[in-house]
This record gives sequence, structure tokens and C-alpha cells, in this order.
Amino acid sequence: MSPLSYSYSPSALVASYEHLKAQEQDLLQRTSSDSAMTMNSSQRIVVAATQITGAGLRDSDVSGFCFRAERAIELAVRQGANLVLLPELWNAPYFCQSQEAILMDLADPVENNVLIRRMQRLAQIYNVVLPVSIFERKNNALYNSVVVIDADGSLLGTYRKSHIPDGTGYQEKFYFTPGDTGFRVFDTKVGKVGVAICWDQWFPEAARALALQGADVLLYPTAIGSEPQDPTLSSVDHWQRTMQGHSAANMVPVVASNRFGTEILQHPDGTEKQRIHFYGRSFVTNNTGEKIAECADNSDPEEPVTIVTAEIDPEQNRRDRAAWGLFRDRRPELYQILLTKDGNM
Amino acid sequence: MSPLSYSYSPSALVASYEHLKAQEQDLLQRTSSDSAMTMNSSQRIVVAATQITGAGLRDSDVSGFCFRAERAIELAVRQGANLVLLPELWNAPYFCQSQEAILMDLADPVENNVLIRRMQRLAQIYNVVLPVSIFERKNNALYNSVVVIDADGSLLGTYRKSHIPDGTGYQEKFYFTPGDTGFRVFDTKVGKVGVAICWDQWFPEAARALALQGADVLLYPTAIGSEPQDPTLSSVDHWQRTMQGHSAANMVPVVASNRFGTEILQHPDGTEKQRIHFYGRSFVTNNTGEKIAECADNSDPEEPVTIVTAEIDPEQNRRDRAAWGLFRDRRPELYQILLTKDGNM
Repeated sequence: MSPLSYSYSPSALVASYEHLKAQEQDLLQRTSSDSAMTMNSSQRIVVAATQITGAGLRDSDVSGFCFRAERAIELAVRQGANLVLLPELWNAPYFCQSQEAILMDLADPVENNVLIRRMQRLAQIYNVVLPVSIFERKNNALYNSVVVIDADGSLLGTYRKSHIPDGTGYQEKFYFTPGDTGFRVFDTKVGKVGVAICWDQWFPEAARALALQGADVLLYPTAIGSEPQDPTLSSVDHWQRTMQGHSAANMVPVVASNRFGTEILQHPDGTEKQRIHFYGRSFVTNNTGEKIAECADNSDPEEPVTIVTAEIDPEQNRRDRAAWGLFRDRRPELYQILLTKDGNM
Repeated sequence: MSPLSYSYSPSALVASYEHLKAQEQDLLQRTSSDSAMTMNSSQRIVVAATQITGAGLRDSDVSGFCFRAERAIELAVRQGANLVLLPELWNAPYFCQSQEAILMDLADPVENNVLIRRMQRLAQIYNVVLPVSIFERKNNALYNSVVVIDADGSLLGTYRKSHIPDGTGYQEKFYFTPGDTGFRVFDTKVGKVGVAICWDQWFPEAARALALQGADVLLYPTAIGSEPQDPTLSSVDHWQRTMQGHSAANMVPVVASNRFGTEILQHPDGTEKQRIHFYGRSFVTNNTGEKIAECADNSDPEEPVTIVTAEIDPEQNRRDRAAWGLFRDRRPELYQILLTKDGNM
């Protein structure tokens, strides 16, 4: 070789740069989306998707829902989960079937919330991350929110559902103010967790916003089932494909936990007013949108709680995404139309 | 009934409003995304996805590619298609396998382009819409473009590929300037057609921008196959799921036409330098992301051209989307992060 030639290998080069950074560790300020790939390189997230029904509980007993949720968490932890996702508004029947002002009494502030208190205790006992769906009261507005509890029981913060549906059986605009938090990624002890809630799952913008901020996994607590105005319509495959698409396009795993079973709303005289069959089918994808774990559409009353678990390798997923080049090639200057409903650029 | 009561039915109300509008037809200026739903209410789009290989052609003969493309169009028209989508850069082997400055001579301006001329004649003869992928020269920059030819042979305009990939075997950044047209919907005689090109198909922003502008269908001419640096990697299912997701989230059908067969790049001495197996699997979805037509990964040299057709009902799809409420519930004020690569809101 000439005196001006020298050789290098890609892997030795990267190792050398990691060595330099390790020497100056204290100088580094890492942001969530730009963490060095080798941080926590051995850490896996073991997620659990769950589904819970209130079938068989007497008088819609809220304590019964809580016991079942706690059982789901315990089952999942026994199978190795370090992050368990409960369904949306898991502590009661889906009360948005109809518009009833009295049901707004179910909302409580984060600071004074027995559900969160119980879940904090469980998180600490089991060393598990618990993103918990609640009906939140704040400044006398009501939100559909998720509070993220870290594996030591501490509160990491709140996300408020951004997209609020409205349709027969799903009267959410009556109850919930559209969320004001924007899309948030929480830096938990097991990884960076992007949280969205049910109807948010239909919006590619929400998934993208979370992936851009460095989410290692997207979580969707959910309450979706039949459409009372059209019993022939089943959205279940459409629902799964939409989230599989977010997973595929952002190269990030998705976890969706849905309730299951049939919830029958009564008239004051006890006769049936309306019903929804919640279809379950909670699932987890890998980083290409492929389903790698899925619960059945289970209507067996002997099994009011179902869980599945799956393992996520955040470091490998970050490498796969970087190699594929998708985020490199975005063209934000062309996306202005996404920010305005009238489409004027 | 009291003198102040009157009854109405939703369908009679809508019919009455349509009647009023028909009386004042000449006053109405309709924009693409807000067209009255009853316009062209009986019109269906019959789309054809195609796939073409150059296998068996002597010396990469460009005329041979043209004959095959024209045969694909004729076959599709005979099956009732009024819109036929050819694959990306269908008139030659996928020349971006390597970086060769001489290959830039394949680019021509729209105004002086024998491929477009031939396709205009076919569009007119067969009364078919032809979105045609070309290697475009404009102001001495080169673009990966689609020219949309209406069913009467007239040119409706050009879209230039916005997202340009770069990787082993797919050296597009060497050839193509990133497109400057933004995302465009073309108002053809059969419906409103949103066009994107290959790598664009991985970006939810592109699909959303087209759907917001009122596209009745999204078209993706494509050239994708194996990854020369990693023969174990197959992107085909990931590729389909990503576009199925765009279809599901925007409730709009998607058509993807891919090339197929193995293209072997030679060294000057005739030995093999590199190969790509293009996997075909061209497909069409309905408005929930479900595949309703699909070509095989066909390697039979007897069949260098494959087509499938499917029918789209734009009016029904617009009604389904409005009823589902997705576009109603968008939150553009929360999407600022999508417009900036550094994520500062």
C-alpha cells in the first residue's frame, strides 16, 4: 500500500466511535428520537395485549372490572411481560353508548384517582410499566386520557385522546373535550412508549408523530365493536389493517388492547335500548406490520380475561429502520396540506 | 300534529337539495375534494394493475418493452378497464441498479417523448386513462415522473416522484432530483386519480395528501424486488401491508403495478455484476385496505405480461368515508411535527 493508503472496516469504525463517546459519557445530552443505537442494547420489551369483558359481573360492578384488570396484569407478568396494556376505559362498561349527563360523574382528576393509585401499587409490586386509560376531569373539562405509570410506580405523565369519534353507540363528543397534550412519547424503564387512544388509531398523523419522536412501540387501548345502526358492518379487519399499516410505514411494533363481549344498554324500565358486541382481537405486530400475537374474538364466559405477549427488540428495530431509509427521505416541505383542513397551501 | 310540527325524511331532504342545485348548475364551482356526492353517480372506475418483465427480450430491446406494455393495455381494455396502470419505468430494465452517467441519456422532456406519443394514441383508440411513468428531463434536471393521459389522449399534467430511495441496487439519488410538483390529483374522465411513484408508497403523508385532495383512487407504479446486499430479506408483504394501511386509513382504493422477473446487470466483459429479482404481486385494494385483486409472483417466461382488473365505486366510497367520520375528526393543529425533521413544534 502507498504511504497515503489506510484500511478500515465499518464495524471497527463504529466500535471506535462508541469507545470515544463512552469516555465522554457525561457530556452527552440525548434526545428521545436520536439516542445512540447502542444504549441499553440488550434490553427487550415484553409487551402484553389484553382483553377484558364485564360479562357475568353483577350490576356492572366496577370493583369486578378492577379485579379482572388486575388479574390480566398478573397473568401477563407471570408470562414475562414488563409492559401491560389494558383496554380503553377498562373499569366500566363502555358508557359512551348513549348521552347521559349523570355518567360524567365517572370522571376524576389524576391527582385524586383510586384507579391510578391501585395501578401504581401493582406496577411497583410487579416491576411493570402500566399505561392506564382513565376518564379524566381537569379544569372542569373531561378528557379520555392515559396516565403512564413507570415500572417503579411513579407517574410519567398524561396523554389526552386527540381524535374524538361520534356515531351511533359511540357518543364520545358528548363526553370528551378533544385532547390538548399533543402526541407524547414516555421514556419508561423498559423503553420509549408512544401512547394513542382508540379512535386515534385511524389517523396516520398520530402514529407518525409518535414514531418521529422515537417511540419503540405504539400502544392503542381500544373499545370498538359492532355498529348499532348497521349490524351488517364489521370493522374488525379494517381496524387491524389500519394499525398494521402504521406499523409497516413507521417500522415500529404496535400493541392494541380491545374490550370484548356484548354490552346491553337498558332503558329505565330494564328493557333493552341498544347493544354493542365488542370484538376483542387484541394484537401485537412486529416492525413490518405483521401480526405476531393475537387474542381471539372470545365470547366464552369462563374466560373473562385474555392476554397475549410478544417480545420487541428496540435496538434491532432502530437499525432496520435506519437501513431502510424511510425517515431519511421524508419531504416535510411538501406536507403543508396535512396541517390545514381547507387544503390551501 | 300541531300547526308548528312538520315531518321530514333524510332521503327526501337530500333529494330536494339536489333538485335545487340542479336548477342552478351553472353557478356551482366545485373543487376536487368537495364535489357533490351525486355527481357522476353511476360512474365506476375499472382499474387494471399490470406487471411486465423484460425476460426473453434480446439485448434489453426497448421496443420489446413497449410492445409488452401495449399488450398489457389491450388485454386490460378487453376486460373492461378504463384506467390501466403500468409499472414504474416500464420501457427498460430498471437502470438504477448501478450508477452510470451514460444512462442519463434515457431521459427526455415531456414535450418531445416518443413513449408519451405512443401512449396518447393508445389512450384515444381505447378510450382509457393511462398514467405513464417516464424518466423526465426538465431544465437539465432529471426526474422520475408520471404523465397522466386522459381517455381522449390529452395530457392532464405531470407528477414528479417526491421521495427518492438510495440503497444497494436502487441507486435513485444518483439519477433523480427530488420532485418539485407536490402531490397531485388529476381530474380524469373516469374519476379523480391520485398518483404517487414507488418509494412514495412507503410515506403515509403522500397518501394522505392525495386523499385530502379528493382522490378516488391512489396509483403506485413500482419497481421493487430483492435486496442485493441481503438475499434473505423479502419486503413483499411489508410492501403490501404499507399500502393496504394507506388504503384503510384513508378509505380509498389503492392500485400498485410492479415489474417482475430477474434482471441481471453485466460487467463490461459480460459477467454478472449484480441481480435483482422483481417480485411482481401487483394488486388492487377496496376502500378498507383489503386486497381484491392480485397478480402472482410469476416467473413463467411464457407469460411476460400479467394483468388483473377490479371495479371501484367512487360515490359509495365517499359516502362510506363520510359516515365513518375520519376526515371530520382530524386535528391539523396537532400535526406540526410532521412538517419539520427536527421535531421542534
